[in-house]
Amino acid sequence: MGPALSPITERTRVRRLPDKQLDDRAALDAVLDAGRVAHVAVLDESGQPYVVPVGYARAGDSVLFHGSTASRLFRSLSAGAATCLTVTLYDGLVLARSTFESSMHYRCAMVLGRAHQVDGAAKLRALEAITEHLMPGRWAEARHPNRKELAATLVLELPLTEWSVKVSDGPPEDAVEDMSRDIWAGVVPVRETHGEPRPAPGLRPGTGVPGYVRRWGRAAGDDRP
Amino acid sequence: MGPALSPITERTRVRRLPDKQLDDRAALDAVLDAGRVAHVAVLDESGQPYVVPVGYARAGDSVLFHGSTASRLFRSLSAGAATCLTVTLYDGLVLARSTFESSMHYRCAMVLGRAHQVDGAAKLRALEAITEHLMPGRWAEARHPNRKELAATLVLELPLTEWSVKVSDGPPEDAVEDMSRDIWAGVVPVRETHGEPRPAPGLRPGTGVPGYVRRWGRAAGDDRP
Repeated sequence: MGPALSPITERTRVRRLPDKQLDDRAALDAVLDAGRVAHVAVLDESGQPYVVPVGYARAGDSVLFHGSTASRLFRSLSAGAATCLTVTLYDGLVLARSTFESSMHYRCAMVLGRAHQVDGAAKLRALEAITEHLMPGRWAEARHPNRKELAATLVLELPLTEWSVKVSDGPPEDAVEDMSRDIWAGVVPVRETHGEPRPAPGLRPGTGVPGYVRRWGRAAGDDRP
Repeated sequence: MGPALSPITERTRVRRLPDKQLDDRAALDAVLDAGRVAHVAVLDESGQPYVVPVGYARAGDSVLFHGSTASRLFRSLSAGAATCLTVTLYDGLVLARSTFESSMHYRCAMVLGRAHQVDGAAKLRALEAITEHLMPGRWAEARHPNRKELAATLVLELPLTEWSVKVSDGPPEDAVEDMSRDIWAGVVPVRETHGEPRPAPGLRPGTGVPGYVRRWGRAAGDDRP
């Protein structure tokens, strides 16, 4: 837990709106555990950056994500290129009386570092963690990857050593001189919800929606405000 | 429209799952217009990449977004650093019979290029476009930025010249040998919805939720499937 106790380095210290920065590991974990999609930075040979969406899971002191072994960009990450993985949960619109103070509710976790490839028995455990984070209960029922599928999958692990987490969840903060205006101000919350499951074509007769899928409930995140 | 007719360059050609790539500008615009948060790549002096979430708007053949003039990273973008702006809409979970074929429904737009700073009269129009994209109807009511606020805001424009758009919206595609398994498969859709507006403290008496906010309706995107 050494690095996790003082994660804010010169690179991850939030300069803009520093009052929104949290420095405890529990806050980081809460954001990572509530998200489903991360955006990962990777550079090509010319230095051009790309921002690529990935499904991921947090497992202990790491974030795990996967891609194809045929992907140039993922191979570059597995070779240890410096990267940044960001998870942003968009929680609502903040309508201030002025457009300048208008903003969003969000929770954002940013992890800096270098990823390494996960292999052997840990690779299957990592794929289980990712599946269970995205689709809780699914690993026990779905067919697990075979040797060929495992070989086609690159699993990457990014340690949670240098990171920042920022949460915006308050009311609009208008300047005093704007408070007397006859303008509505407030927050319009945004939530992700699950819709009704749609069965795939060709299901075997009598194969109903599993109980674990039904239990995902309406909220798509764990702890949306 | 020259570049827009053949946007797929060696850098933006989708190598993974190329059948999901669309090459028409209307598909790009649809994704950009449905999203609210983009993730932008920016490098510091040492080459460390950062992935930063921003509110944005598409306006014609550009994406507009803004940050603080005090932000090092935004100043680097305005100086013309190569960047990538990605908008990902997470539309659902695809539960295949195998974990290998399991995936997500998503719409993803990726724009490569260099941004430039927007100034003068165009700057106010850009801020109007961003406000109206995030909060349709708000510009006519809220107080517009004053000279000091404009000076504190950096508005960036990224042209839509090199881009890719990828949409995953089909049923799970299991291998033939998995089709006879007694495992439920299908899609669990995810939607973003607006919750009930929460008034800010200190509203002037009788200031109700505006009609344009009520008209945003339940769907937080324009055209969620």
